[in-house]
Amino acid sequence: MLLVLELVGIAVFAASGALAGVRARLDVFGVVILAMTTALGGGIIRDVLLDVSPPTSLRDWRYLLVTAVTGLIVFWIHPHMAKLRRAMLLADAVGLGLFTTAGTITALELGAPAYTACLIGMTTGIGGGALRDVLIREIPVVLQREIYAVAALLGAVVVVVGRDIGLPQGPTVLAGAVLIVTVRVLALWRKWNAPLPRES
Amino acid sequence: MLLVLELVGIAVFAASGALAGVRARLDVFGVVILAMTTALGGGIIRDVLLDVSPPTSLRDWRYLLVTAVTGLIVFWIHPHMAKLRRAMLLADAVGLGLFTTAGTITALELGAPAYTACLIGMTTGIGGGALRDVLIREIPVVLQREIYAVAALLGAVVVVVGRDIGLPQGPTVLAGAVLIVTVRVLALWRKWNAPLPRES
Amino acid sequence: MLLVLELVGIAVFAASGALAGVRARLDVFGVVILAMTTALGGGIIRDVLLDVSPPTSLRDWRYLLVTAVTGLIVFWIHPHMAKLRRAMLLADAVGLGLFTTAGTITALELGAPAYTACLIGMTTGIGGGALRDVLIREIPVVLQREIYAVAALLGAVVVVVGRDIGLPQGPTVLAGAVLIVTVRVLALWRKWNAPLPRES
Repeated sequence: MLLVLELVGIAVFAASGALAGVRARLDVFGVVILAMTTALGGGIIRDVLLDVSPPTSLRDWRYLLVTAVTGLIVFWIHPHMAKLRRAMLLADAVGLGLFTTAGTITALELGAPAYTACLIGMTTGIGGGALRDVLIREIPVVLQREIYAVAALLGAVVVVVGRDIGLPQGPTVLAGAVLIVTVRVLALWRKWNAPLPRES
Repeated sequence: MLLVLELVGIAVFAASGALAGVRARLDVFGVVILAMTTALGGGIIRDVLLDVSPPTSLRDWRYLLVTAVTGLIVFWIHPHMAKLRRAMLLADAVGLGLFTTAGTITALELGAPAYTACLIGMTTGIGGGALRDVLIREIPVVLQREIYAVAALLGAVVVVVGRDIGLPQGPTVLAGAVLIVTVRVLALWRKWNAPLPRES
Repeated sequence: MLLVLELVGIAVFAASGALAGVRARLDVFGVVILAMTTALGGGIIRDVLLDVSPPTSLRDWRYLLVTAVTGLIVFWIHPHMAKLRRAMLLADAVGLGLFTTAGTITALELGAPAYTACLIGMTTGIGGGALRDVLIREIPVVLQREIYAVAALLGAVVVVVGRDIGLPQGPTVLAGAVLIVTVRVLALWRKWNAPLPRES
């Protein structure tokens, strides 16, 4: 089930990358490559931090296939230009939820302590999107207005606590992912912004 | 022979980095550091993915010496401003060819399966240039018009197939590199562009 | 004592990241996240290059606490806008000094040869700041005017030579750090610029 969650997360992050690529007016190859980088980047960072070599997403052809297909689909049937950023942020939110929780569980199962697993899970969830934004010269979404890293942290904590108190893994991971996506979508919809530095 | 190929690849990638640095009006240190980052970046990424620690290019002083000397030479005798980007793209194409094939062979020899070795080889070839572009705030060449990643893929496949059917390693790696450089130069010269997303 | 040096280095790099975040008009979360990324980035790169898994800064909660607290303090009592860049460069210089020397010693103690340890130490010192600059779309300070990487190199060499000739570790590391900070501050103050490429 973890594999299914990861592949769905791969697909939605690929979609977010492809949508960003379309918005940046890249050609079909650029869109697909950006989709691949966004989708596989977080998992590769996680595998490097946990000393899994070579990274899982480079060993199993299904990962790359999912990103390529998703990238091509988005390239052909993307929303209107005006709605691209919103679609990208929504796909990114779902990917953040799935990847953060899957990454946290993966870290726990490889023996990482709870604190470390939370951080590695968050890095897995945030990393792909940050890579996507840097490549097209945008400031990463994680650094912009609206709750992002905090949402990921909440989901990671749910996963760790759920495992600690003995809850079944599947529902816990799903609950964590749903929490992250909900917080993120609410933050975007209701514009939950945090304070800015004083002007002087 | 693999070492020679790698050092030549290091030199040309260092040249591409230095040319980009001159174009970005960096001073001599900036030009040399950008040359070093571009030249060693791909190999370091490859060694991290293959769990080679510490990375080869940080252990052998010849790597850094080649990058520093190349960077300084380019700093002093660079082409006219108008021709800098073209020179940078040409050096980048040769580096892409040499690094992708050398990286694929290295991955194979460290036990990676064919599929993974292709991807790691491509990442080695593409990584240094992407790092260079990001540091001077350009969109990476791999995401721009004209065939790039596909060229690298072709060369990686040639290396893997050649090894599979028992061809001698040296000529195969060279053939793969030549193929990559040829495809890339043709794409730049004949403007082999891929379709853009629809406008609406 | 190495831990104290590292935590102070973490704090000042966090300050440099937070100052950059305030200057980029990020909100409180963005400022704190940028502080964390700048402060922990160099150490994570070092641990990845030296095959330390998971990275130290993700295992010990004191690291993250120091970065969060520093980030929040800077968010609340930052200097006037006009002085932000200068403050950021000063904090960055101190962080560069502490991290480069601590990173070099760490590499030496993990068995890396002198040459490699210097390079890894320099990468540790330079990496966090480069990450910070890339995330807010600035050209990394290391590539700009004024001596930067050379300052880091001098400190790394002091650490390696001091260890080679048997000097006590604490004073050597401190001397190296002071040298780096002094060279950097002098370079900024006296505008020690290096030659630019010729105009044509």
